[in-house]
Amino acid sequence: MKFGLFGSAQAQRGGPDLDSGQGFRDYIEYNVEAEALGYDSTFVVEHHFTGFGQVSASLNLLTWVAANTSTLRLGTAVIVLPWHNPVLLAEQAATIDLLSGGRLEFGVGKGYRHNEFASFCIPIEEADERFEEGLALILKSWTSNERFSHHGKFWHFENIIVEPPTRQKPHPPIWMAAGNPDSIRKVARRGCKLMLDQLASTQLAIDRFNIYKAEVEAMGRKFDPMDVAVSRAFFVAKNAEDKARAIEARLANQTRLAKLAQVPGGDSKSSMLSFDQTLDAAAESAMFGTPDEIAEKLARLRAAGVEHILLNGPSGSRENLRAFARDVMPAFSGPAPKAAVPRPQPQLVNS
Amino acid sequence: MKFGLFGSAQAQRGGPDLDSGQGFRDYIEYNVEAEALGYDSTFVVEHHFTGFGQVSASLNLLTWVAANTSTLRLGTAVIVLPWHNPVLLAEQAATIDLLSGGRLEFGVGKGYRHNEFASFCIPIEEADERFEEGLALILKSWTSNERFSHHGKFWHFENIIVEPPTRQKPHPPIWMAAGNPDSIRKVARRGCKLMLDQLASTQLAIDRFNIYKAEVEAMGRKFDPMDVAVSRAFFVAKNAEDKARAIEARLANQTRLAKLAQVPGGDSKSSMLSFDQTLDAAAESAMFGTPDEIAEKLARLRAAGVEHILLNGPSGSRENLRAFARDVMPAFSGPAPKAAVPRPQPQLVNS
Repeated sequence: MKFGLFGSAQAQRGGPDLDSGQGFRDYIEYNVEAEALGYDSTFVVEHHFTGFGQVSASLNLLTWVAANTSTLRLGTAVIVLPWHNPVLLAEQAATIDLLSGGRLEFGVGKGYRHNEFASFCIPIEEADERFEEGLALILKSWTSNERFSHHGKFWHFENIIVEPPTRQKPHPPIWMAAGNPDSIRKVARRGCKLMLDQLASTQLAIDRFNIYKAEVEAMGRKFDPMDVAVSRAFFVAKNAEDKARAIEARLANQTRLAKLAQVPGGDSKSSMLSFDQTLDAAAESAMFGTPDEIAEKLARLRAAGVEHILLNGPSGSRENLRAFARDVMPAFSGPAPKAAVPRPQPQLVNS
Repeated sequence: MKFGLFGSAQAQRGGPDLDSGQGFRDYIEYNVEAEALGYDSTFVVEHHFTGFGQVSASLNLLTWVAANTSTLRLGTAVIVLPWHNPVLLAEQAATIDLLSGGRLEFGVGKGYRHNEFASFCIPIEEADERFEEGLALILKSWTSNERFSHHGKFWHFENIIVEPPTRQKPHPPIWMAAGNPDSIRKVARRGCKLMLDQLASTQLAIDRFNIYKAEVEAMGRKFDPMDVAVSRAFFVAKNAEDKARAIEARLANQTRLAKLAQVPGGDSKSSMLSFDQTLDAAAESAMFGTPDEIAEKLARLRAAGVEHILLNGPSGSRENLRAFARDVMPAFSGPAPKAAVPRPQPQLVNS
């Protein structure tokens, strides 16, 4: 299995005595250590105007991470295309891809937080159309070696060639988050990779994984399990109390984020907001517990074919990062076991 | 005097055998070495759709430079505000300022290349208005600790608070390029710092320096010579032939760039395009020659009060960077000499 990270950093606003950069520096160091511990990737969220310091310029933060690492894949989860000028974004993303030696994993979305659309003064009803036009223009920008023009509904460019070129050809992998079956099938048909959220139950994540897999195979393509990343919260707990406290904190945080994203009438249909807000559901979906408890959940996912996990840790805890790498990861590194393999016994030799 | 760098990197587009990232990596290493050699800053240009690989995402490239340096000031020269969403740009610039410990020097302009406006499908006639609205919105984004709304001619935002905060307070220094006397006075009245181009003659650069200084003093403020950066091409030549070749190459390059920027009728009034396209003019404005010849030109600028130079070297030559640092810079480091100071003689003591 392959383990990446999924998360955010926080830059607090405050008076002259507060070091607002500390949260960003902690995030960078967390990822530098993650690479050394064997994590494969880091995916960072992007949000705007939250008031509590979520990352807004994700490619810029990732560029600093990239400059301090050498193998870690650099993911966005996700850049909301309707906010961005697609051509400027293509330039920025190509720059980090080129500088990092082709390590960008480009996660994109159409957005789901009602208040972000309101703040950008962009009608949420335009999200789909803006997303489609933006994505098509980004792909064209990355793949066209000749000048071209674009006259769409939202963007106009005349006689452009977009620089720099990406390092990955034809372009960096495109990731999309989806939860509803039709959306998942659409991601597969586009040839994009799929991110599954950390809130859905284990079974729901497996069901969604299977929908994607079936759609890829129905198109006659070979399914690669690395193309579906299942996000999971993770916390290696010291004891039962430690675990219970973490689950409570997680539920409180989920509820707060859901409120932020919800439309005023509370009737958003986003699959991101349809999880059960109960302690049991939070405990089931999260990989919280002893190494053995976590291993059990991972084994269930692996048995279903899942090979790619994105882990989200509480407050960037380094201790947690190390504990998982030390006590859980080794048993799941490499391909899934086909059958029980007897452990070779050391031979006694005459010295 | 203080010596910074001014320049660009190039990412060539090509087939699978071409490493397009080499030019960007060379630029980064050039700047890492520059910091070690005592250069104070690096200012990078931003251009779009040139077809020969100029830097488009300048803050992203600078972020990588920033992650590999610790004192080098990180300048944009310039970001053309009419292309950018001012709030996204404020977020991106604040991110590098925060991560770098407050090393951003934010150079902005309204743009002058006709073909860039045409490619962005933005009328060049809107440049002034877009620049003013963009700059005001960026400054508000950086300095407001409360949510605000903006409804301008080109941009609309509702109930936003822009994150992360900048490290420098109230905000990073703002630099503007100007050449015409009225424009220079306006930069002074805004309280912004002034960049002077590398094409004007020494005397014209001094005249422009004096216009800014006079305007600052006329407002009753104390003039700081570090607030005016005079750009100069620099090349420490091995011999007369080496120097002559460099001057010819420089003139050819100037002429090519001027053609790129010019409007179809050839009647742009930009001061950036009003230099004399002759070998004599190119030789006079450039600091090309032996260390003594370069020192003579620097001494003339210093005698006129200029203390801050941005140097543009040919093709990022490391040899040139080192030769200037070794053979020219030491005599001009620190404050200008008021008068000849007798060198203290070591006292002979009984051992």
